[in-house]
Amino acid sequence: MERQRLKSVALNKIDIHDLFWNKYIDLVEDVILPFQWELINDQVEGAEKSYCIRNFRTLIEKNGEPHRGMVFQDTDVAKWLEAVAYSLAKKKNGHLEELADQAIDLIEGAQCEDGYLNTYFTITGKERWTNLLEGHELYTAGHMIEAGVAYYEATGKEKILKVVRRFADYMCTVFGAEEGKNHGYPGHPEVELALVRLYHVTGEKRYLELSDYFVRTRGEKPCYFDTENCRKEGNYMFPEFADFENDYLQVHMPLREQTKAEGHAVRAVYLYCAMADLASEYQDEKLLEQCDKLWENITQKRMYITGSIGSASFGERFTCDYDLPNNTNYSESCATIGLAMFSNRMFQITRDGKYMDTVELALYNTLLSGIAMDGKHFFYVNPLEVIPEVAEKNPTMRHVKTTRQKWFGVACCPPNITRTLASMGNYMYAVGENTLYSNLFISSEISAPLECGEISVKLSADYPDNGEIRYEITGKEAGEFVLAIRRPHYCGFCIVKINGEEVSYEEERGYIYLERSWQPGDIVELSLDVAFRFIHCNPRVYENIGKIALVRGPRVYCLEEADNGNYLKSVLVSPETEIAEVYREDLLGGTLCASFRGKRIDYSNAGTNLYGTEKPAYEEDTLTAVPYCEWNNRGKGEMIVWLREQE
Amino acid sequence: MERQRLKSVALNKIDIHDLFWNKYIDLVEDVILPFQWELINDQVEGAEKSYCIRNFRTLIEKNGEPHRGMVFQDTDVAKWLEAVAYSLAKKKNGHLEELADQAIDLIEGAQCEDGYLNTYFTITGKERWTNLLEGHELYTAGHMIEAGVAYYEATGKEKILKVVRRFADYMCTVFGAEEGKNHGYPGHPEVELALVRLYHVTGEKRYLELSDYFVRTRGEKPCYFDTENCRKEGNYMFPEFADFENDYLQVHMPLREQTKAEGHAVRAVYLYCAMADLASEYQDEKLLEQCDKLWENITQKRMYITGSIGSASFGERFTCDYDLPNNTNYSESCATIGLAMFSNRMFQITRDGKYMDTVELALYNTLLSGIAMDGKHFFYVNPLEVIPEVAEKNPTMRHVKTTRQKWFGVACCPPNITRTLASMGNYMYAVGENTLYSNLFISSEISAPLECGEISVKLSADYPDNGEIRYEITGKEAGEFVLAIRRPHYCGFCIVKINGEEVSYEEERGYIYLERSWQPGDIVELSLDVAFRFIHCNPRVYENIGKIALVRGPRVYCLEEADNGNYLKSVLVSPETEIAEVYREDLLGGTLCASFRGKRIDYSNAGTNLYGTEKPAYEEDTLTAVPYCEWNNRGKGEMIVWLREQE
Repeated sequence: MERQRLKSVALNKIDIHDLFWNKYIDLVEDVILPFQWELINDQVEGAEKSYCIRNFRTLIEKNGEPHRGMVFQDTDVAKWLEAVAYSLAKKKNGHLEELADQAIDLIEGAQCEDGYLNTYFTITGKERWTNLLEGHELYTAGHMIEAGVAYYEATGKEKILKVVRRFADYMCTVFGAEEGKNHGYPGHPEVELALVRLYHVTGEKRYLELSDYFVRTRGEKPCYFDTENCRKEGNYMFPEFADFENDYLQVHMPLREQTKAEGHAVRAVYLYCAMADLASEYQDEKLLEQCDKLWENITQKRMYITGSIGSASFGERFTCDYDLPNNTNYSESCATIGLAMFSNRMFQITRDGKYMDTVELALYNTLLSGIAMDGKHFFYVNPLEVIPEVAEKNPTMRHVKTTRQKWFGVACCPPNITRTLASMGNYMYAVGENTLYSNLFISSEISAPLECGEISVKLSADYPDNGEIRYEITGKEAGEFVLAIRRPHYCGFCIVKINGEEVSYEEERGYIYLERSWQPGDIVELSLDVAFRFIHCNPRVYENIGKIALVRGPRVYCLEEADNGNYLKSVLVSPETEIAEVYREDLLGGTLCASFRGKRIDYSNAGTNLYGTEKPAYEEDTLTAVPYCEWNNRGKGEMIVWLREQE
Repeated sequence: MERQRLKSVALNKIDIHDLFWNKYIDLVEDVILPFQWELINDQVEGAEKSYCIRNFRTLIEKNGEPHRGMVFQDTDVAKWLEAVAYSLAKKKNGHLEELADQAIDLIEGAQCEDGYLNTYFTITGKERWTNLLEGHELYTAGHMIEAGVAYYEATGKEKILKVVRRFADYMCTVFGAEEGKNHGYPGHPEVELALVRLYHVTGEKRYLELSDYFVRTRGEKPCYFDTENCRKEGNYMFPEFADFENDYLQVHMPLREQTKAEGHAVRAVYLYCAMADLASEYQDEKLLEQCDKLWENITQKRMYITGSIGSASFGERFTCDYDLPNNTNYSESCATIGLAMFSNRMFQITRDGKYMDTVELALYNTLLSGIAMDGKHFFYVNPLEVIPEVAEKNPTMRHVKTTRQKWFGVACCPPNITRTLASMGNYMYAVGENTLYSNLFISSEISAPLECGEISVKLSADYPDNGEIRYEITGKEAGEFVLAIRRPHYCGFCIVKINGEEVSYEEERGYIYLERSWQPGDIVELSLDVAFRFIHCNPRVYENIGKIALVRGPRVYCLEEADNGNYLKSVLVSPETEIAEVYREDLLGGTLCASFRGKRIDYSNAGTNLYGTEKPAYEEDTLTAVPYCEWNNRGKGEMIVWLREQE
């Protein structure tokens, strides 16, 4: 039986008006995209120079300036353009569209005769495709393709789509199994998933085939990278690449045999996205099963409770099962986004709610931790525990920033967060045959084409603060269709009412399927158990032994110094403690906090001896926890997620 | 009033025959020194090449080969020679002396006409003294001088002393305040303390003055290193030096104002050794007070319970107060040795037992942890907690080795451990006026010149397993003198008997002063409380909150996987638990172990979910702890010092 992959709903068919999410989403059009345009144009004082747009001008004007920034600096404009596309898809904005068209003109102007497009290699004159290990050419190509597809889909304008098609057509002549072609694949995956998107929008099969080629040959012996000069001669562009083993690049064994998530986390999950896409396109059940094994390995052995991944800074990478240190981890914002992308694909292919549970975790915690509530400051690294003085003085944590930064030299995360916020609709709903899937409880109105015709639904919620979710069938007509609602895995209970009456429901792999002939005005109400609860970690995670974490619905909570003073590692909490919900209007734009009793060391009596036989005295205290995603919006201070459990 | 610095007793006047220490000390002459000679001659299969001796031959033979190894590769032969000297001082060994004389011929042969001596700079032809920041020239000179002094003192042979005097004389013409001279100081201190030693043996005051110059000007503004090309032009020999701030080099403020131990730990403590020496030579009480502040900062805020220092690998450095992570620390063997050297000097100057307490801690724990019981494998890095799979897979811990290595490219630690073992006598006793100080309870016979004449004492003990220490006044005659015995800070009780009768005693700053007219055959017996006890850490050390460590006398104990299985971080122990002392003949050459009850997680029921609400179940178990210094002598496995405390 053929698997029908679910489809996203066009972003212009989803109108989001959510108390929680609009705090962030509204920033995209109003603040972030204009601000990031200034950033990539080097117009923001106090921010690191980007040189992104300047490189395009340098190339076009042939003004003799050097290329500046990273080898993949072009991706900043690509991700910005992709985010603009999603924003325009939702809502027209003449000014943004004009800026985007300016950028597209520059991109088009920078394209070589043969279709090649990359300011770094073209300006420097370095030989193309000779350092796939480090050069990021295919990675950059992938982001450019994603941007081109998204902008075409949003605006119908073909210029940028033509640019990326020409680039892809050219790549199809360069790479492949045929003799005389380059038999490589990217050091940093991304082009694989982009080529599938390009295939979807153009129907051009060779894009799909090139993606499949990259995935199919990856990790075969002998390793392609061993044939490149950087490895053969040790003349690396980035010295650390000499230290990276093949597993860092997911080429330590044939990709189709890998079942543990290894290496650079962003590379890994981008690659798995393409694997999932290909499994669906080729109806390859074995590959799909392998994707699920990789996904299970991540989410059951290598993922933080906040939905972040990458336990080590050196290599920004996965390490080994159950190794989840809380203060030295990398947990890159981009990796979380990649995990959400991978999970969303797996859901669309399998319709299994477990994948969307992880999407929800990633979006509500680490995605938002990556961005300040002003929309202008960003974290790359999202630790679960910070003591600022230590993070600043101990170089083991030199990747950890104690306040969000305006922009980084390597600016992957900010535009990645932006494009994700701008395309939230892709995660919220999906459709297949005659079923509308509602994945995330974000207040919105949607109309979607089902077999029964175009249907309209209005979702009203004050989630995640509140577990009462209300769906109203709207529109002039309705019809017989299935409303499939995700039942989050964390719920102790989940009561469903239709038109005020509780109904029993069928649940299949995390979804409640409600099939009937719907009438306009029909109401479905869900009561989800979103009470605060304490979580234990699998005790194989050595860092979290004897600890508990407070969560509520999909959100992880943390203690911050701003509310609780310092030495938070001394806090002891019983999982039986009563938790008062306190809505603080004044805090972080209005936030539901937790207030509970705990014990902590009385430092006023702690003495000065470094080592002694006396046990420190404890005192009782009332503690306040805030959502992890909102941490560090009130200046620098200690933060902790995993608290010591009082027996 | 002038402070009289205590003196060490000549090594040939101390005969060590100690159950515990001879396990290691006997290896020096029989195993380690011959083995290390082979190592520096590149004759050991499976060990990294040293090139140390080869560089000298290359220089002498002008054979056109390049210099190989580190810029300070010469120090390996210097430290080996210094250790040989101490070994010969204790006991003649014709073969070793012959090897040493061979090495000395090579060293002499490599010396330039003007006295300069350094194979790296001479072979490469790089300009001398132009990169004091990174070049290690003065550091290498310092080790060469120490070797020369030690070998002359041990054998009376003047050849190597003349070599290093010529080198020092030359340096005195190069460096100094006078116009036209180089106003720099070493990036890596060592020469400062060496010059004081050379002054002591030669009486040549300008060596002392040059040392004083290096110390006095260090950290003055403008920073000397800013005038060097590596900083001015960014062309570093070691790329990481671009990241190192001035505090890494102890030049962030005038050295005489620094009161916190900052930067590279070995550099810091070597420097403080010279400061202490100079404080004594110049009777500079302010400088001495500052030395004490630095020492207090280390031992009360920045030192591991095992006497090791250096909380971070990047920079091998101090970080900030109370930052003592147990699994990512550096805790270099060399840094511990430097701390022992600094503490010993401070003791000799002030006669305060607190310094020798730290010497004892450093020697009984980290010094010995650095060397395998076969004398042929070494640790640089001495963590307090290791999970092998994590240390091997998580690059945050890539400096941590999970088994001791044969030799390292940078081989500072093995020969440093060797010279320390070979010169234990310098830590065991000291004399001043009419007092013999007994610092360490190592079975030995000593004769020492006091004002009353030459006295002889025999110390018998089975320490640290046993707290019964026995001194016998030996020799034909005795006399009226003071026997000063250190009363370790950890002792709950310390009973003193003379000739079988308990006596009350005067104690001053950690020493028991017993003054009387001693007769041959007089017996002093000490009963020290060396019972097992659990230690709490100052709760400002965030890593050790809620934990306890087991110690006995000066030794720290740990749990190893070999005795206790894995997942040691799950172990919970009550400080009230009864500890059975178990002497295991079969273990580690005979070792006193601790056996006690604790709880640990039952992993057979731990489930597979990464996050859940259920608390893991615990089970009771009997645990076995072994001395930390002996860990990792039974293959790779988990190890832990700080155990979770059961309330």
